[in-house]
Amino acid sequence: MDTTPQEKTKIGLVGLGTVGSGVARILLDHGDRTARQAGRVLWLERASVRDLKKARDCNLPAGVLTDQIDAIVSDPSIDVVAELMGGVELAREVILSLLKAGKDVVTANKALIAAHGPELFDAAREAGRTIAFEAAVAGGVPIIANLTQCLSGNQVESLTGILNGTCNFILSKMHAEHVPYSEVIAEAQRLGYAEADPAMDVDGTDTAQKLAILAHLAFGARPDWRAIPRVGIDTLDLADVRMAQELGYTIKLLGVAELTEKGLQLSVGPTFVKNGSPMADVAGPMNAVRVTADAVGELFLQGPGAGQMPTASAVVADLIDTAVGRTKLTFQTLKLWSNESERTPVADQADAVARFYLRIDAADEPGVLAQIASALAAEGISIASFQQQASDAATVPLVLMTHDTTEGAAARACTAIGKLAPVAAAPVRLRVVG
Amino acid sequence: MDTTPQEKTKIGLVGLGTVGSGVARILLDHGDRTARQAGRVLWLERASVRDLKKARDCNLPAGVLTDQIDAIVSDPSIDVVAELMGGVELAREVILSLLKAGKDVVTANKALIAAHGPELFDAAREAGRTIAFEAAVAGGVPIIANLTQCLSGNQVESLTGILNGTCNFILSKMHAEHVPYSEVIAEAQRLGYAEADPAMDVDGTDTAQKLAILAHLAFGARPDWRAIPRVGIDTLDLADVRMAQELGYTIKLLGVAELTEKGLQLSVGPTFVKNGSPMADVAGPMNAVRVTADAVGELFLQGPGAGQMPTASAVVADLIDTAVGRTKLTFQTLKLWSNESERTPVADQADAVARFYLRIDAADEPGVLAQIASALAAEGISIASFQQQASDAATVPLVLMTHDTTEGAAARACTAIGKLAPVAAAPVRLRVVG
Repeated sequence: MDTTPQEKTKIGLVGLGTVGSGVARILLDHGDRTARQAGRVLWLERASVRDLKKARDCNLPAGVLTDQIDAIVSDPSIDVVAELMGGVELAREVILSLLKAGKDVVTANKALIAAHGPELFDAAREAGRTIAFEAAVAGGVPIIANLTQCLSGNQVESLTGILNGTCNFILSKMHAEHVPYSEVIAEAQRLGYAEADPAMDVDGTDTAQKLAILAHLAFGARPDWRAIPRVGIDTLDLADVRMAQELGYTIKLLGVAELTEKGLQLSVGPTFVKNGSPMADVAGPMNAVRVTADAVGELFLQGPGAGQMPTASAVVADLIDTAVGRTKLTFQTLKLWSNESERTPVADQADAVARFYLRIDAADEPGVLAQIASALAAEGISIASFQQQASDAATVPLVLMTHDTTEGAAARACTAIGKLAPVAAAPVRLRVVG
Repeated sequence: MDTTPQEKTKIGLVGLGTVGSGVARILLDHGDRTARQAGRVLWLERASVRDLKKARDCNLPAGVLTDQIDAIVSDPSIDVVAELMGGVELAREVILSLLKAGKDVVTANKALIAAHGPELFDAAREAGRTIAFEAAVAGGVPIIANLTQCLSGNQVESLTGILNGTCNFILSKMHAEHVPYSEVIAEAQRLGYAEADPAMDVDGTDTAQKLAILAHLAFGARPDWRAIPRVGIDTLDLADVRMAQELGYTIKLLGVAELTEKGLQLSVGPTFVKNGSPMADVAGPMNAVRVTADAVGELFLQGPGAGQMPTASAVVADLIDTAVGRTKLTFQTLKLWSNESERTPVADQADAVARFYLRIDAADEPGVLAQIASALAAEGISIASFQQQASDAATVPLVLMTHDTTEGAAARACTAIGKLAPVAAAPVRLRVVG
């Protein structure tokens, strides 16, 4: 093609696992496409791996593969490097070396950014380089660009996300097939939708890390992801899935950030989402983000949250943005994770206003409901709906939906209810939205 | 705030109607926000209107308002101008003057871009300036940035959009309340969801113009919007809305672009969308775009397609991108509507493969179905489902869903069916997706 640009941006890849191989395939197989979008050739110069002998999902030209990360760090011809090795400590060291060596960095590593964002972004500023990280949150859904660029005329007011595809896959199965968590997780592992050790996905850690990143971009807050109250899906009972369906809801693992007068409320947990809303319909390993903002109103984005090519799509978009120079302008303007960039305090989640679903297993005897109602009234919580199902068991499930109250009041009421003599265990408490 | 940047980008607004007033309000009321996002102050210097005495939806500082467009064109201190006057011919002349005077331009004017894109973009290139147009398609949904930037590592394979909020509002009402088009359009006009002369919205013109723009961005095609086969909602019969609901579908006015081996298939028309898909659930004056692409898979975006503040959100994002310098990089790289940029031919829509809903009003007499079935068979069209409802009228509605066929074959079969003696009128033919 005679319009192929002559200028080249040389790319290095650190890590050639699932995502790295996907990025390599786009660069190698679709050079005309990336050249057209970047106005210059994106040239895959080197790719470093731990084990040269491992079979890979892409065919690299001779001389590209190396097991020496330093072959990339110390090659002055390489302009941009995508860190796709995963993990935290080694990745951090590699990125710091890359920045020091004058390279712009692209990463898909949300755990790293959630843990070391300030240090890494300061190092990039000091070196006059950039870090792009579209792939770190929601995979193929370009939520980073949409927040930092497309919504720049807005004050974001709330952000709600299904940010973990593994959890959404598992929850979809639990709703569709009424099998308990323990069975679905085993199947998800067999199908490759869950890792051998899925703890970080299913306990809400992954969602909290992504929510912390989005909270910085959307609100200028600087939450520590570890301080975000989080509940995973690993403790979710099938009984509550069934109840949700009966009541017209779907349970989703949501990360929620809401701007209030007291600051930014942040939480992660299985949530009752009213059926008929786009968020309730997000099925399988998809991710979705709903943003409400003062000018645009409500924006909803949905797409694949993980997987080889969707994540590679986001990484290559970052490589192109970096090669074109957009990343540099955005990076210099927004001053992310700098000392100047905290403008919204994180509020005490106990003050967060929400509605709740409560399931209480209690002995079927006179006066139980009166005791529970008193415990709720003592915290000023009013009941929106109540149902008790007939049961032959020694205990019966009482299901309550509350009107708006605070997280703190709901937690205190549940503690009190859990101590009542006829109550078998602490109530199940899930937030309700929509 | 001591971090307020010192540099200023001076903004001019041509037109201060609904959208212009919204843009002015963001610039005037939220200067800290735009300064933070742009790294410089966005300063509203002048705004031109036709009638200085008209009441407006924003409070301008003294000296900003003028009835002389030339006061903006000839002011060398103004860097970027948003053209928000609407219309085609005068807007074209104004933008050409602005570019010549060395100003970057932002516009929300899809009719103008659909009609004069090549001339305007060539003029901008010649003057070394830029044109940004996020607000021209899908209002607050940032589909332009998502296509040109976020999906740059992808080959887009198809794009399906609800691109006209007025039509979606009307269709939602027809489905929910079973009132005919003629009644809903009157209500939509009263509520301000439809213009006094809604022809361009309801006959599919607006959707075709937007689809032509998106087809250029997503596929590098250069369709003439007038050549896109289009059907509006103004001829839609309530009987077909009822049938869609019975069959598990929702009728949406879709613009569809599909990349095939024969080139790009483009069409606009009321379409049966299978319930349970995100597109079927898009209600009221919302817009939505579904993009399928080789790397990301499927991406779905939904948001307000029109209205003062959503459209202003997109205009201000463009103003910020232009002030930061991102627009310039993107503009220079993509070479939109230049001689180099056509890379996908537009295919003959008669070859487009699709499934169809057919409703045929026919006399209730022996042999009718045989004649219809023969007409379909003559075009190689096979029937997926068929139903005939009991009726006391002289004619009965026969409803057919076809398997995949081509637009051309379906059109020929319908012409033949319309000529059959027992058939009252040409069949209603609507595409089916999902």
